[in-house]
Amino acid sequence: MSKSVLLYVCPTVPAEPWVKAFAESLPDVEIRVWPDIGNPAEVTYAFVWHPPSVLFTQLTSLRAVFSLGAGVDKLLANPELPRDVPLIRMVDPSLGADMAIFVAMQVLHYHRRMPEFAAFQRERLWRALDVPMAHERRVGILGYGEMGALCADRLRSFGFNVGIWSRRPRSDAGLRCFAGLEQLPAFLAETDILVCLLPLTPETRGILNAAAFAAMPRGSFLINVGRGPHVVENDLLAALDSGQIAHATLDVFVQEPLAQEHPFWAHERVTVTPHVGALTQPHTAAVMIADNIRRDLAGESLLNTVDHALGY
Amino acid sequence: MSKSVLLYVCPTVPAEPWVKAFAESLPDVEIRVWPDIGNPAEVTYAFVWHPPSVLFTQLTSLRAVFSLGAGVDKLLANPELPRDVPLIRMVDPSLGADMAIFVAMQVLHYHRRMPEFAAFQRERLWRALDVPMAHERRVGILGYGEMGALCADRLRSFGFNVGIWSRRPRSDAGLRCFAGLEQLPAFLAETDILVCLLPLTPETRGILNAAAFAAMPRGSFLINVGRGPHVVENDLLAALDSGQIAHATLDVFVQEPLAQEHPFWAHERVTVTPHVGALTQPHTAAVMIADNIRRDLAGESLLNTVDHALGY
Repeated sequence: MSKSVLLYVCPTVPAEPWVKAFAESLPDVEIRVWPDIGNPAEVTYAFVWHPPSVLFTQLTSLRAVFSLGAGVDKLLANPELPRDVPLIRMVDPSLGADMAIFVAMQVLHYHRRMPEFAAFQRERLWRALDVPMAHERRVGILGYGEMGALCADRLRSFGFNVGIWSRRPRSDAGLRCFAGLEQLPAFLAETDILVCLLPLTPETRGILNAAAFAAMPRGSFLINVGRGPHVVENDLLAALDSGQIAHATLDVFVQEPLAQEHPFWAHERVTVTPHVGALTQPHTAAVMIADNIRRDLAGESLLNTVDHALGY
Repeated sequence: MSKSVLLYVCPTVPAEPWVKAFAESLPDVEIRVWPDIGNPAEVTYAFVWHPPSVLFTQLTSLRAVFSLGAGVDKLLANPELPRDVPLIRMVDPSLGADMAIFVAMQVLHYHRRMPEFAAFQRERLWRALDVPMAHERRVGILGYGEMGALCADRLRSFGFNVGIWSRRPRSDAGLRCFAGLEQLPAFLAETDILVCLLPLTPETRGILNAAAFAAMPRGSFLINVGRGPHVVENDLLAALDSGQIAHATLDVFVQEPLAQEHPFWAHERVTVTPHVGALTQPHTAAVMIADNIRRDLAGESLLNTVDHALGY
C-alpha cells in the first residue's frame, strides 16, 4: 500500500497547531496543507472546514473526509462532496466539554436573572430578586447527541429539571424525554430555558419559529448554539419585542459573520457571541482522527460517520 | 417542661414563608413574630437577621440563637448577644447549592471571556478569542467550609484546576491546598480566578488588599461572595484601573446597600449584584433548624454552633 496522505483544507483556520498535532498523532502519514496539495491523486484523507467547492473533484483517491466541526450541514450542501466516501463529523471530547461550559454558563446566567441585575446596576438600583430553586427551573435541550448528553449531565449536577427533545425516542432516568415533531409543543410548553444543540437538517431548519416561541411559557429564554438557520430570525425578534422570549443568547446566525446592520447587535435582550460555543482543540481532535485513520488502514469500520440522508 | 417558643426576628425579611415552614417542621413549637413577642421570658429560641440590638437583654430564657444567614459577623459584633447561649449559623444544603450556582456562573463567565465579548457586541465586532482549556484555568477558593467544598466540586466537574486556601491545613486529592497567612501569596500567585467565600473575622478583614492583588497573575479575576470588608475597596479600584485585576464580581460591600455615588456601580470592569449569592430557602432551612431544636430538647449537642473566638 502506498503512503497515506492527509490534506488539511481549512482556509479560515490557522494550520500550524493542527499540522503539529497531526504530526504527533500520525507519524506515518504525510500531512499536506492546501493549496500546496502536490499530486491530488495521492491524497487519501481530507480534513476540511469551508473547503473550496471544486476541491473534491480533484481528489480521486479519497478514503474519508473529516470535518473540523461537529456540524456538517455546509459540507453536505456541497454538490461536489463525494457521496461514496465516508464523511466523519467531529466528535471531540474537549468539544463537548467546551459546549457544556458555554451552555451551563448561559443557563446559570438566566436562572439567576443576571440580565435584570445588569439593568439594575446601570440604574444604580440595589434590589434583590426572587430566584426559583434549581429543581423548579425547567431547562429543555433540543438535540440529544454527545453534546446534549454532556450538557444535560452538567445541568443536572446543579439540580435543574432537565428535559430533552430528540428525533428518535430516548429514555434516560431523571430526564423528561420527548421525541418527534408531534411532541415538540409539549416539550416547549415545559421549557423555561431552551438550549438548541440540533444538527441542521431539512427537518430542523426554521424549527425555532413563531409557533415554537408561542408554545413556550411567557418570559422564557433561548440559547442557540446549534446553527443559525434553526432560528427564524424575524420571528425571534418579534418574540423578544413582545416579551414572549425574555432574552436570547445567540452564538450562531443565518449569515456569519453577523452583518454590521443586523438588529441583534444592539438589541437589549440579545447576547451575541461570534460562534465560539465550542472550539475544536487540535491536540484532542487529532487523536480521534488518527484513531479513525488507523481503523481504516486496518480494514475496520470508521466511527462517527455521517448519514447523508439524515444530515448528521 | 413548658412549651417551646421560637421568636422570628428578621425585620428586613418577609415573615410569612418562614412562619409557614416552621409551622410544618415544628408543629409542637409556638412561633411568634417580632415585635409581637408576648412574654419575652417564654421565648426559648430566636431566629434572627439584623435584630434590634436591645432584643437579647429581654430574652432571659433563650436556649439557642439561630442565624438566618451563614455569616454571623454582624451578630457577633452585637454586645448584647448572650455569650453563654449557643449561636447557630445557617448550614442549609440549598444555601450551598445556591452559592455553587452563583460562583460557577461567574467563573464560567470569566473563563469564557464574556466581558470582552460583551464589549465586542457593543462595537458590532465579530471576533473570536482564544480560550484556554478548563484544566489550564486555575480557580482559587478562599475559604473551604461547606460552601467552598461544594463550589470546588462543581468547578472540578467542568475540569478546572482548583486550588483552595483555608485557615487550617486541609488535604483533598485533586485540589491544590494552601493554608495559613504564610501560604497566601503562593496560593494567589497560582490563581487566575479568585473566589472569596471566607467568614469575616479579625484575621480575614481586609485580606483582599493591594498586596494580595499584586501577588496574583496580571489580568486575573475576583469574585467576592464572602463579606464586603474582606476587600479594601480603594485597593481593588486601583488594581482594576491598572489592569492588574481584569474584572471583579462583587456581591457584598463594606456598606450595604451600596451607596448611590459609589464608583463600583458605573465601573466598566465591575459586576455589582445586591447580596444575592445565596439565599436561604425557608422550607429547607426550617427542617435543619427543627432538627437542631429536637436535638436540644432531647439533651443532645447542637450542630453548626459558632465558635465566638474564631468568629464562625
